[in-house]
Amino acid sequence: MLKKIPKRLSPELVKTLMEMGHGDEILLADANYPAATNNKRVLRTDGILMPELLKDILELLPLDTYSDYQACLMAVVPGDQAVPNGRPPIWDNYESAIKAAFPDYKLKLIERQAFYQYSHDCFAIVQTGETALYGNLILKKGVVQ
Amino acid sequence: MLKKIPKRLSPELVKTLMEMGHGDEILLADANYPAATNNKRVLRTDGILMPELLKDILELLPLDTYSDYQACLMAVVPGDQAVPNGRPPIWDNYESAIKAAFPDYKLKLIERQAFYQYSHDCFAIVQTGETALYGNLILKKGVVQ
Amino acid sequence: MLKKIPKRLSPELVKTLMEMGHGDEILLADANYPAATNNKRVLRTDGILMPELLKDILELLPLDTYSDYQACLMAVVPGDQAVPNGRPPIWDNYESAIKAAFPDYKLKLIERQAFYQYSHDCFAIVQTGETALYGNLILKKGVVQ
Amino acid sequence: MLKKIPKRLSPELVKTLMEMGHGDEILLADANYPAATNNKRVLRTDGILMPELLKDILELLPLDTYSDYQACLMAVVPGDQAVPNGRPPIWDNYESAIKAAFPDYKLKLIERQAFYQYSHDCFAIVQTGETALYGNLILKKGVVQ
Amino acid sequence: MLKKIPKRLSPELVKTLMEMGHGDEILLADANYPAATNNKRVLRTDGILMPELLKDILELLPLDTYSDYQACLMAVVPGDQAVPNGRPPIWDNYESAIKAAFPDYKLKLIERQAFYQYSHDCFAIVQTGETALYGNLILKKGVVQ
Amino acid sequence: MLKKIPKRLSPELVKTLMEMGHGDEILLADANYPAATNNKRVLRTDGILMPELLKDILELLPLDTYSDYQACLMAVVPGDQAVPNGRPPIWDNYESAIKAAFPDYKLKLIERQAFYQYSHDCFAIVQTGETALYGNLILKKGVVQ
Amino acid sequence: MLKKIPKRLSPELVKTLMEMGHGDEILLADANYPAATNNKRVLRTDGILMPELLKDILELLPLDTYSDYQACLMAVVPGDQAVPNGRPPIWDNYESAIKAAFPDYKLKLIERQAFYQYSHDCFAIVQTGETALYGNLILKKGVVQ
Amino acid sequence: MLKKIPKRLSPELVKTLMEMGHGDEILLADANYPAATNNKRVLRTDGILMPELLKDILELLPLDTYSDYQACLMAVVPGDQAVPNGRPPIWDNYESAIKAAFPDYKLKLIERQAFYQYSHDCFAIVQTGETALYGNLILKKGVVQ
Amino acid sequence: MLKKIPKRLSPELVKTLMEMGHGDEILLADANYPAATNNKRVLRTDGILMPELLKDILELLPLDTYSDYQACLMAVVPGDQAVPNGRPPIWDNYESAIKAAFPDYKLKLIERQAFYQYSHDCFAIVQTGETALYGNLILKKGVVQ
Amino acid sequence: MLKKIPKRLSPELVKTLMEMGHGDEILLADANYPAATNNKRVLRTDGILMPELLKDILELLPLDTYSDYQACLMAVVPGDQAVPNGRPPIWDNYESAIKAAFPDYKLKLIERQAFYQYSHDCFAIVQTGETALYGNLILKKGVVQ
Repeated sequence: MLKKIPKRLSPELVKTLMEMGHGDEILLADANYPAATNNKRVLRTDGILMPELLKDILELLPLDTYSDYQACLMAVVPGDQAVPNGRPPIWDNYESAIKAAFPDYKLKLIERQAFYQYSHDCFAIVQTGETALYGNLILKKGVVQ
Repeated sequence: MLKKIPKRLSPELVKTLMEMGHGDEILLADANYPAATNNKRVLRTDGILMPELLKDILELLPLDTYSDYQACLMAVVPGDQAVPNGRPPIWDNYESAIKAAFPDYKLKLIERQAFYQYSHDCFAIVQTGETALYGNLILKKGVVQ
Repeated sequence: MLKKIPKRLSPELVKTLMEMGHGDEILLADANYPAATNNKRVLRTDGILMPELLKDILELLPLDTYSDYQACLMAVVPGDQAVPNGRPPIWDNYESAIKAAFPDYKLKLIERQAFYQYSHDCFAIVQTGETALYGNLILKKGVVQ
Repeated sequence: MLKKIPKRLSPELVKTLMEMGHGDEILLADANYPAATNNKRVLRTDGILMPELLKDILELLPLDTYSDYQACLMAVVPGDQAVPNGRPPIWDNYESAIKAAFPDYKLKLIERQAFYQYSHDCFAIVQTGETALYGNLILKKGVVQ
Repeated sequence: MLKKIPKRLSPELVKTLMEMGHGDEILLADANYPAATNNKRVLRTDGILMPELLKDILELLPLDTYSDYQACLMAVVPGDQAVPNGRPPIWDNYESAIKAAFPDYKLKLIERQAFYQYSHDCFAIVQTGETALYGNLILKKGVVQ
Repeated sequence: MLKKIPKRLSPELVKTLMEMGHGDEILLADANYPAATNNKRVLRTDGILMPELLKDILELLPLDTYSDYQACLMAVVPGDQAVPNGRPPIWDNYESAIKAAFPDYKLKLIERQAFYQYSHDCFAIVQTGETALYGNLILKKGVVQ
Repeated sequence: MLKKIPKRLSPELVKTLMEMGHGDEILLADANYPAATNNKRVLRTDGILMPELLKDILELLPLDTYSDYQACLMAVVPGDQAVPNGRPPIWDNYESAIKAAFPDYKLKLIERQAFYQYSHDCFAIVQTGETALYGNLILKKGVVQ
Repeated sequence: MLKKIPKRLSPELVKTLMEMGHGDEILLADANYPAATNNKRVLRTDGILMPELLKDILELLPLDTYSDYQACLMAVVPGDQAVPNGRPPIWDNYESAIKAAFPDYKLKLIERQAFYQYSHDCFAIVQTGETALYGNLILKKGVVQ
Repeated sequence: MLKKIPKRLSPELVKTLMEMGHGDEILLADANYPAATNNKRVLRTDGILMPELLKDILELLPLDTYSDYQACLMAVVPGDQAVPNGRPPIWDNYESAIKAAFPDYKLKLIERQAFYQYSHDCFAIVQTGETALYGNLILKKGVVQ
Repeated sequence: MLKKIPKRLSPELVKTLMEMGHGDEILLADANYPAATNNKRVLRTDGILMPELLKDILELLPLDTYSDYQACLMAVVPGDQAVPNGRPPIWDNYESAIKAAFPDYKLKLIERQAFYQYSHDCFAIVQTGETALYGNLILKKGVVQ
């Protein structure tokens, strides 16, 4: 542990976030995500939930001001009855955390099968302990000046 | 994740617990413990606190019925004012968790400098996110029949 | 060995099952299957037969409720005289084991040559000691909530 | 699998047995033995019991005719009540298997703590699935002419 | 060395033969074959000639009863004057060795350039010390029941 | 680069500082220090001078409040004429940087030959670009609560 | 450090520059460049700015006299308001450094997205600490006679 | 060093030459050749010139009698004024060395850009210290009987 | 294979012989020798007998003219009845081969247990296919001028 | 190759010289020196003679001004008749090369057996192609300011 760096972030995760460059994207995946199948670099944070991890990461990671989106979500499958109003509850948490860091943020929604494919090109996948539905979130790194 | 296996336990940690044999010991260390200096096998669980991790591990790990102790703690340094009554509060949690798994448990107290040396011979050190004082705990594995 | 984890499962196999995500598939192959030729991740369990291994794995591994099949078998080659009624006897064992874990299960049959190709994309192949004809079985992992 | 080689023996185990030379010793350890702590080369055969493994290995491995012992056992701890007559039942199986291969065999008994130390110098440790008491057995390799 | 396993076979070669599955093929190549160029897995047996190696391997390796060929040879280049009657003398040895193991064997002849390409997909190439012309031989593994 | 983390610190260096525990020490060595000879873990920061690196590291690294020293310097060799008043000028910079982070700091002076030996036990050596005389500095990590 | 070799150049960087051949290109990238995403060989020089690094490298690295360009820059995105006159200020520094080494130099401008792709084929990427806009520079190595 | 093996040939180089098979080709490249860019296996012989290296290699390496060429050269770029008569002087040395080993040799000329591409498929590239123009030479290995 | 290098010697063995220096010793061990137990560098030549291997090696390897012995043998155990006259028959072959290469050779005899220990310090152990009694032989390398 | 760096020095050798620190020593050994036996880091420069290598290295490597010697030689064995006047001829070359770089140099002579032992602690051993008697030379690195 070090001063200024949130305690939940492992040395390997901080190193990975530092090595990312402008435009690189990282997937914070839920606990059931097929991570190893979709990316060579997988970091596990078993037992850590997304709301707390997201808040910690955004303390360090700048979002991309040059892009027309700062984060990506997996679009709700049309007719998925497990999501009553078509709006996964955990997204409220995500959006307020992102908004606090980047008020004018925009989200990109990606269809489910395309999302798996998309995650092949992420810089890394963090496999969290989150089990909320549609809990996967991709962040796009910006620049530090 | 799998059925029956507590969610906070990573694949690597479960594998390590399985590879331990009768009498092998594992140190669940606090977040400030000099782990890499004292053992070659270090597993990190940043952000996970000891009470929840201990409970999860004891669901799987049998304690040693042949030994005259089942767990070790770092003895409080005489005169340490940060521990008012000479009894670190978190030990209550540890003892009740161990008692639930092993009613007749016995603890071994190890002097601070000796404790660091002792941890060289542990099977592994798990570096947790715990920051409570005197939060280090060594478990001695028993047999499965 | 650990409590709750079937004894026949090796640490490496449990770790692999834990690392699989939703939708990932694992092939439990017979002793003659060309495993190394068809997958980079091969775990050997020489001497262990399928019925006992399958039962053990299903104690831990959830099957996929979102998919239209939970397991795959290699279809019997038309006219194969080694299988009198076109129904390999060991499939009865497989089906009752799967049914116990997942009553509404569905099976996918894959033609022999296609099956080899299909197994390239499995998360891993477990090379068992089974020598029954048409003994290969693919399981599709579900979610843990 | 190959002709003449017992099916329960893995490729890695046969390779290891072949690489051993005259006088090298291998420990067939029970499922609770602290194998990784006592030897750098550990081969796991989870789920395989000693009687069947021993019989298979002795089909291939010659015992040492030059030595004054061909195998070692861990001596029963004096007063161990889990072994009623001071004679672990599984030893009968071991002795008859060894006798079949080497009629004039001699056994060496090694005190428990010394046994752990002794196993550091074995060529390898095979961690079997055996859970019988005092089930550990060391074989000393002879020559092939 | 072990009982029942021919002495000329190295531990690595036996392990490789064991890891091959039904239908996998292995090339026993002559001493001048460009082995490393055509396969990632190369085992060298410098100084060992094909007739003795082939006999040893066939003691262990079952040939494929399901295939319409059990072995492959490199077809003689039309007009090659180094092979007077278009029949390399060493083939007699090969055929009698294979016949002893598999009376109804069939051979597949592969044109020279195609043969090099074909060997890319072999499980492994054994680079022998043989220098006879057209001495390369591919064996197709069968099943052990 | 990340927010809050000084830009001169590499991902590998931040990871190393995070992995250090309470009481672990790190040597910031000058450009001529025989680093690889004295420690297995060497991180290079060619071209970076000590004053700027020290200031950056102290933004993140807590010093040890439990120890009777927070940093170590190599004692000036008696009679070294390159150091006129027996006080290397760069030490003023070091002391003011440390004082800003830890007002009651204490320094330990270590004789030159002993210093090389001492550095074997450091967690790591950072080989900086500093060429000032007696520019080596060891920092002792404290706890984060 | 060695005589004649600029101090800011690390051993790894000098080795890399030496291993490059005629026509190989190396990217000196700014601190925000997505280096690991675009090349397998990444050398970090955190905290080192381009003007000083470029000058040091050109002391050692010959530029290509056979090519119709000696260096590449990322073309300014049309309408980028962060670059007032369409001319990034740091380019003046680059051009005068290159001119001093190669009076008749020519530059190649590469469109932004094409530049990322182009950097896949560079021999290596050096991730500097530079944060000036459009600070990326590719050098093409010439011959030493 | 060994008897019969020329002293300038390193153990790694002799091993590489031995591992090559019939028809494999090796590039002896000049000191400026982009070797690592064009082949995964690069052996360096800094400071060794081609005439002496070529003579040494041809003492051991048989050239290919079955091929319609035994060596390849990079064709002179039409109009290259650095090569007055369109004939690089060092080729005389190469041809007489090859002739001494293989009187009826034939050379293949490969256009410059195609030559780089061609060298991807060589067994290895030896990066020599030669700086003569058009000094690259590819040798095609024959058989030893 | 290469010209001048005996065909039975593998590329790895020739490389090893080349890397040995003046005074380094290599053990040519029989097929039952516990090689991996006594040395980290083991080269296997299964199926190759000592007389032919020794002759091949002595074509390349110079023996040590500065030492008071050029080779070592394992002394016959006093009273060993398997060696009728106390003189293993294969030694005649060894001595005539060594004499042909080094007329004034001297042998060192080493007691059996000491021999195993002695072989720890050999440069490498070659595990041959020899099964003759007392067939182990150590050669001491000389200089090439 | 790079400007200012002598052509005979390989990238690996220059990197090694750069990584050495003040007081580290490097052995330039003759072609028969048992290098791998005496040091873990061996760099080969087969075919390169000491006089030319020494001159190149001294262009880059500063010698130690703080030590009471700058280089070491292996003392001539008393009575060695191969060295007529007890003075190996090649030492003249060494001394004039060192003198050119360091006029007030001093040499340390080390007895032959002690020299081998001494070389265990060198930073690296460069195995040159030199075959002159007593051609080994150790250089002690100084500082660059």
